[in-house]
Amino acid sequence: MQRTDKHSIITSEYAVYFNTLAFQALNEHLKKIAYSKIFILVDENTKRHCLPLFFQAVSGSKSMQIIEIVSGEANKNISTCLNVWNTLSDFDADRKSLLINLGGGVITDLGGFVASTFKRGIKFINIPSTLLAMVDASVGGKTGVDLGALKNQIGVINQPEMVLIVTDFLSTLEPRQLQSGFAEMLKHGLILDPQYWKILNKVSDFNGLDESIHKSVQIKNHVVMKDPTELNLRKVLNFGHTLGHAIESYFLDSESHELLLHGEAIAIGMVMEAYLSYKLTGLPENELTEITTSFVGRYGKVEFLNDDIKQILSLLKFDKKNSHGNINFVLLETIGSPKIDVRVPENLLVEAFAYYAEQ
Amino acid sequence: MQRTDKHSIITSEYAVYFNTLAFQALNEHLKKIAYSKIFILVDENTKRHCLPLFFQAVSGSKSMQIIEIVSGEANKNISTCLNVWNTLSDFDADRKSLLINLGGGVITDLGGFVASTFKRGIKFINIPSTLLAMVDASVGGKTGVDLGALKNQIGVINQPEMVLIVTDFLSTLEPRQLQSGFAEMLKHGLILDPQYWKILNKVSDFNGLDESIHKSVQIKNHVVMKDPTELNLRKVLNFGHTLGHAIESYFLDSESHELLLHGEAIAIGMVMEAYLSYKLTGLPENELTEITTSFVGRYGKVEFLNDDIKQILSLLKFDKKNSHGNINFVLLETIGSPKIDVRVPENLLVEAFAYYAEQ
Repeated sequence: MQRTDKHSIITSEYAVYFNTLAFQALNEHLKKIAYSKIFILVDENTKRHCLPLFFQAVSGSKSMQIIEIVSGEANKNISTCLNVWNTLSDFDADRKSLLINLGGGVITDLGGFVASTFKRGIKFINIPSTLLAMVDASVGGKTGVDLGALKNQIGVINQPEMVLIVTDFLSTLEPRQLQSGFAEMLKHGLILDPQYWKILNKVSDFNGLDESIHKSVQIKNHVVMKDPTELNLRKVLNFGHTLGHAIESYFLDSESHELLLHGEAIAIGMVMEAYLSYKLTGLPENELTEITTSFVGRYGKVEFLNDDIKQILSLLKFDKKNSHGNINFVLLETIGSPKIDVRVPENLLVEAFAYYAEQ
Repeated sequence: MQRTDKHSIITSEYAVYFNTLAFQALNEHLKKIAYSKIFILVDENTKRHCLPLFFQAVSGSKSMQIIEIVSGEANKNISTCLNVWNTLSDFDADRKSLLINLGGGVITDLGGFVASTFKRGIKFINIPSTLLAMVDASVGGKTGVDLGALKNQIGVINQPEMVLIVTDFLSTLEPRQLQSGFAEMLKHGLILDPQYWKILNKVSDFNGLDESIHKSVQIKNHVVMKDPTELNLRKVLNFGHTLGHAIESYFLDSESHELLLHGEAIAIGMVMEAYLSYKLTGLPENELTEITTSFVGRYGKVEFLNDDIKQILSLLKFDKKNSHGNINFVLLETIGSPKIDVRVPENLLVEAFAYYAEQ
């Protein structure tokens, strides 16, 4: 597989470095900043598959303390944070220590939160190991953990020192994990770049994704830098996520359903929210069909019983994006033109599930 | 008791309002900002002694949800945060909700942290009910909770919308609580204002403290606005706290010792750190004596066994202010002139305990 070291994306707050430039930047950073101690947060998968490459690429004789947590969204909670905080304390981490988060979205979200709150904030670096984390979680400064079934209820917005995107890590992933991350990339096209949406729809195998990953990071970065605290523009990144998050939370908490990956859940959310867009914000019918065909073709379909739908809708009101008891959606006027803060009546939500079921 | 509405202290980030101006400002704020829901965090003491006055003073028909936690430093932990986060969720708090913290330092520290991390941050207002919280905890944006015996290990720096100082609340406090808060005021004099230190040393009863409280808030505010994240100047506020925090933590965690209040612990810390200042940074002997006499006269003495001292010193290395394994102190060159980042050899720390014991 050909790897491209696309040029780095550097903002006033942090920088994203790609492939060989990534470890070069890390090595220079570690030479420049005298961290008192360096910790590296992994799970059992990234410890096995990513840590060897990481240690090979890090130069010098820096000693690093490994902190391992158990993989999976079910462990993205305050109890895991307590373990990591206590481990940092036990190993004498202080305010000048560094936490490197090596893993998927659970590691970068949780590790970012732990670092941002340990002794009122130590520095951290994100090294996403999944496609999803590369194009989404690791950039933008959203950190946090779940509260029961409610996703990302506890967290802060805080930027990492740098983000390293090493696409070699993708070769260790299952195809299903890659498809999950790809859903966020498709979303980037849908909300801001019709041309990019078209290109992505032609992708059938995941070799040579480097250019597109770079493009997605650029799009996400552009949005979050303009509106880091999600007052306006940043909300567009939530397309598909209002329903998608509720579906994901419900499946995570339900014993009778198999786990849905994040991208699989928001793929369903995007189909349903495209339907809402068709009904409320003028999304042309042919674009609705194009979106539906793309996602159902790529991700298949999930069956929802009436009781599932009822419970998913009751989870919706807890979504962080809601306020004053209204459920606000980001919808599309056309592909590439999102509209934020659209209120959707509850009967249309039930219709959206029906539309999805008909496909 | 005569109450003065000293002029408000307004900075670019937040404002501190005194006495009758306080509730006036709150009422105007609540009229101006359309919060979706308002929550008020209390403990059993402030619910009983402060909430009635609060509700009397708040105008309009705002409905507020009361969240009650159990008072005391022992409950300033993540488990209490989880209760409050869950209660906020259960009562449909959203990103446009407000949390009002009505209580002492535990309430303002913990409530500030809970608000700063709930859905990645909701707004909060501090209404300190103790002297300690008025002159210290409520101003400066340090929020957080303890991790086991380690004080304030988990937290963030985040400013409240406003701080309301209502000195009428002080009439509900035990004299011992007032003395505890007074120690922080004495510290303000020691680190930045010899004149103020002299004035405070003449105070024998706690009626008519309004002018001094205003002065202390001004001093603290001046320092934290110049250096909100404690890179340099803000460190001076830690005078007496390096040893004081370790002593406080040790007593909190030990079953054989009675509880030391925060101010009582840092009063001991200030005597010992004045001794270190005499040994290391040229504090004149007469000023050391003046400081020692003042604190021992006001706060009495606590006995430390050899084993206590050993354990307190081992807690020291966890202090947030330490890095790279060194124990850094703020010491005094003279009263009013602090020096930050002074390294102290361990044998001098043992000597400081011996000096204190001789008094």
